[in-house]
Amino acid sequence: MRSLIDVVDLSVKELDELMGVANDIIRNPDKYKEACKGKKIATLFFEPSTRTRLSFEAAMLELGGSVIGFSSADSSSAAKGESMADTARVISCYADIIAMRTPQEGAALVAALNARVPIINAGDGGHKHPTQTLADLLTIKREKGRLDNLTVGYCGDLKYGRTVHSLIGALSRYKGIKTVLISPEELKVPSYVRHDILEKNGMEYEEVSDLEQALPKLDVLYMTRIQRERFLDPREYERLKDSYVLTAEKMEKAKKDGIVLHPLPRVNEISTDVDADPRACYFKQVECGKYMRMALIMKLLEEAEKDKSAVTIKGENLVYDKYKCHNPKCISRTEQELRNIATSSPSSPDILRCIYCEKKVN
Amino acid sequence: MRSLIDVVDLSVKELDELMGVANDIIRNPDKYKEACKGKKIATLFFEPSTRTRLSFEAAMLELGGSVIGFSSADSSSAAKGESMADTARVISCYADIIAMRTPQEGAALVAALNARVPIINAGDGGHKHPTQTLADLLTIKREKGRLDNLTVGYCGDLKYGRTVHSLIGALSRYKGIKTVLISPEELKVPSYVRHDILEKNGMEYEEVSDLEQALPKLDVLYMTRIQRERFLDPREYERLKDSYVLTAEKMEKAKKDGIVLHPLPRVNEISTDVDADPRACYFKQVECGKYMRMALIMKLLEEAEKDKSAVTIKGENLVYDKYKCHNPKCISRTEQELRNIATSSPSSPDILRCIYCEKKVN
Amino acid sequence: MRSLIDVVDLSVKELDELMGVANDIIRNPDKYKEACKGKKIATLFFEPSTRTRLSFEAAMLELGGSVIGFSSADSSSAAKGESMADTARVISCYADIIAMRTPQEGAALVAALNARVPIINAGDGGHKHPTQTLADLLTIKREKGRLDNLTVGYCGDLKYGRTVHSLIGALSRYKGIKTVLISPEELKVPSYVRHDILEKNGMEYEEVSDLEQALPKLDVLYMTRIQRERFLDPREYERLKDSYVLTAEKMEKAKKDGIVLHPLPRVNEISTDVDADPRACYFKQVECGKYMRMALIMKLLEEAEKDKSAVTIKGENLVYDKYKCHNPKCISRTEQELRNIATSSPSSPDILRCIYCEKKVN
Repeated sequence: MRSLIDVVDLSVKELDELMGVANDIIRNPDKYKEACKGKKIATLFFEPSTRTRLSFEAAMLELGGSVIGFSSADSSSAAKGESMADTARVISCYADIIAMRTPQEGAALVAALNARVPIINAGDGGHKHPTQTLADLLTIKREKGRLDNLTVGYCGDLKYGRTVHSLIGALSRYKGIKTVLISPEELKVPSYVRHDILEKNGMEYEEVSDLEQALPKLDVLYMTRIQRERFLDPREYERLKDSYVLTAEKMEKAKKDGIVLHPLPRVNEISTDVDADPRACYFKQVECGKYMRMALIMKLLEEAEKDKSAVTIKGENLVYDKYKCHNPKCISRTEQELRNIATSSPSSPDILRCIYCEKKVN
Repeated sequence: MRSLIDVVDLSVKELDELMGVANDIIRNPDKYKEACKGKKIATLFFEPSTRTRLSFEAAMLELGGSVIGFSSADSSSAAKGESMADTARVISCYADIIAMRTPQEGAALVAALNARVPIINAGDGGHKHPTQTLADLLTIKREKGRLDNLTVGYCGDLKYGRTVHSLIGALSRYKGIKTVLISPEELKVPSYVRHDILEKNGMEYEEVSDLEQALPKLDVLYMTRIQRERFLDPREYERLKDSYVLTAEKMEKAKKDGIVLHPLPRVNEISTDVDADPRACYFKQVECGKYMRMALIMKLLEEAEKDKSAVTIKGENLVYDKYKCHNPKCISRTEQELRNIATSSPSSPDILRCIYCEKKVN
Repeated sequence: MRSLIDVVDLSVKELDELMGVANDIIRNPDKYKEACKGKKIATLFFEPSTRTRLSFEAAMLELGGSVIGFSSADSSSAAKGESMADTARVISCYADIIAMRTPQEGAALVAALNARVPIINAGDGGHKHPTQTLADLLTIKREKGRLDNLTVGYCGDLKYGRTVHSLIGALSRYKGIKTVLISPEELKVPSYVRHDILEKNGMEYEEVSDLEQALPKLDVLYMTRIQRERFLDPREYERLKDSYVLTAEKMEKAKKDGIVLHPLPRVNEISTDVDADPRACYFKQVECGKYMRMALIMKLLEEAEKDKSAVTIKGENLVYDKYKCHNPKCISRTEQELRNIATSSPSSPDILRCIYCEKKVN
């Protein structure tokens, strides 16, 4: 059985295949309209996310399948204290595949270890949100014709921006990617992104604070929102906020064939006067997200037909019950009778990370 | 592309066609059971309204289509501050048609201007709720055999009763309609209904305060609820409330072929002892609502096939950015970067109204 | 028209037929995949219960039907004060069958008396929850091969445990059932269960407080949760709680072919180390619930085709308007213009019970 917890669970070859299928769906939607007839997806959204939830539901319906689920924790048994493991077991009796969003980090992995059907992580706290990255990759591929040899700028909140970290990671597997990190000092990317992704993979990158200066060289500009709450000093927020707002005026400095992405929802970090610009691709990105989810649902259901064995914990240096994870949002803090397990990567054997949320535990 | 924001967006001829289709569905439901196969409606209910939402969902399912959506704002991205325009653009990627209910007045128009699919206004604050009026019209047509030459009484809260104003407007386009407005002094119809609809169309009308006296002459009695909160003096409410409750006893004074309508939900303004009376048509009205929604969904999807161009603002004297709308519930007060636009009607060139909520701005 | 309010509304013969159909669905799911094509179930959950709601929805979808509904009261018209009777009438216009869960006891009966379609009680307060009992019966039948000549233990909160009372009642119609009631003093079964079910039917039973001592003789162990709030003295709860937790260690004392059931969700009353034990049948019970709901939906829809007349109140000694029910959770306390009706059973002619919630009124 395959689940999708992190985008790197998919090989580059698998990503290419998924994008191929998505492109074929776009060209021949009728060919797929009964591809999942009789199948059900459960959308378990323990916290609300309309866009992501409806994208999964539209995807399944366009494949001829159907949908059950909930859109917030209050209408779920979680309110009665049911564990994630039990929820996954129970919902496996009702649906053929599960897409889930949780505030707890690592919850999708716990679900995958217990479910009898594939789990798709639709966002687990600040940890991972792989189907957003699938949407981003397909949009870039379709608009730019390639995923290598691109200069990609990321602008806004790069510290907490889960989608940014994930896309940097996904693109690290392609050649010739130059990364431009555009943010205020307070919101620079965490050091693990710099060290473990950019530097480890020998990727060219620079950190700058000025959007307008960076714009002319970018093939792709990935915008994110800056939240007032992230700043210690509100005056600093007021001083900076306008410089990270993309406007039609600033777009005059961008490449003629550059593209603008945004994971949405936006608040005001992209002015609506940019929307009519053909380089504004954030609504195309929404559509790409639906098509990649369709391709993914088909792939995971096919693999589940072939291999019904449960997902198991992978990793070489598994340390059981020795380290407790201190991340207050980690699923290991709330889940009934869940063992604490830590692991190290071959390249950093001294650093042990929680297998659920991947935070350091030693 | 056509959307339905207000019932007067439909010509009398179109209304007749919709009622014709609805009657045909009632006679031959099987003929329509795959009419919308492969199509999806999104029901975006930013505030709850079970009856209306489930009516749209049942309508789409009986046409062989399917449903996505949400039933309250907390489970939507609106909680994250997404604009109505963006929501409409995003949901256009997932659904073929959208039915939406919002607390903000004018929100459905903003959605229609930005969506790539037809929008049906399922209630925008106290402003419009056209599909309720479609239900009312079909019920009257089926029960009375005509929409002209009728004496129609409206009882209860005529001041805030959006459904009442809308039905008065819709019937103003038919001949020989006599209107009897039955309400306490505090809850009389607003002056614009008297001047701009009843008087401008030369309709015969009277304002009375006694339901029992009015009953014998009515072909149609349209009941609405009186809310305690509407009264400045609670003793006044206590004194009056029973006189606006319809009972089996009072029904003895009604015409033998008169009918009673109510937009539901009722609380106690119609006693349950009236329910068994064959003249009580409020549950038939619920069914008529479903059938009119089926007819409407088919019509708008057909028109969207023919004309995919976006909805644009209509009106002759459009004044941009000069007047700010002061209605606190107007969508222009909250929507990101929305231009203030006012318009005047040919018959009242001096009065400028907000194009979104239609409140006066000058 | 048939509705299902209480499991005893079904005769033993009907229960056997339902289990027969459920077993046939398990063997030949394809045979049923269009059995309810074109039909809709409305799931009206005035309080959340994910597992039960999704079970009904999965059941209907696996029969080829579709689903409308709501998952909590805030997204329903009940918030606007609509009566249960009106809700049932209105939803009858949208759906072919209704499954409903309410906090008010007797609400499903009121709905059934007013609906135009069958009602399935999916839990009305602490009163009844018949489809859980259907799940329990099928699980026992499939795992033990019979529903008679069994020693059945119930452990935990037997005072408030609605599912326990219901299963004891359902099994009272089979021969050779020995009942072992395992609970702390505070949480023993109510006297009416002892007198009106166990003793009246001449069933062998014992009340004990020690789970480990009882385990060796049980063919079936039905676990439930003990809630801290039920105890007057929290120290008493602390002292007792562990003795009512089932662990792998305790399971060593259980029969080799005994089975463990639990209505779920569990919190920690069954340790997760029991889950891998083949005698742990609580996840099988979830699947059995879905299949019994499929069988039930088909049965009620078939009967509704044959007999469309509304459900009426049954009972021999009906006393109208004389006794007011004092149960604060009874639907008669909140429903608009609902008559107070009491009834007595032939065996206890002196005791009058509310027909809605079955609490004593005299």
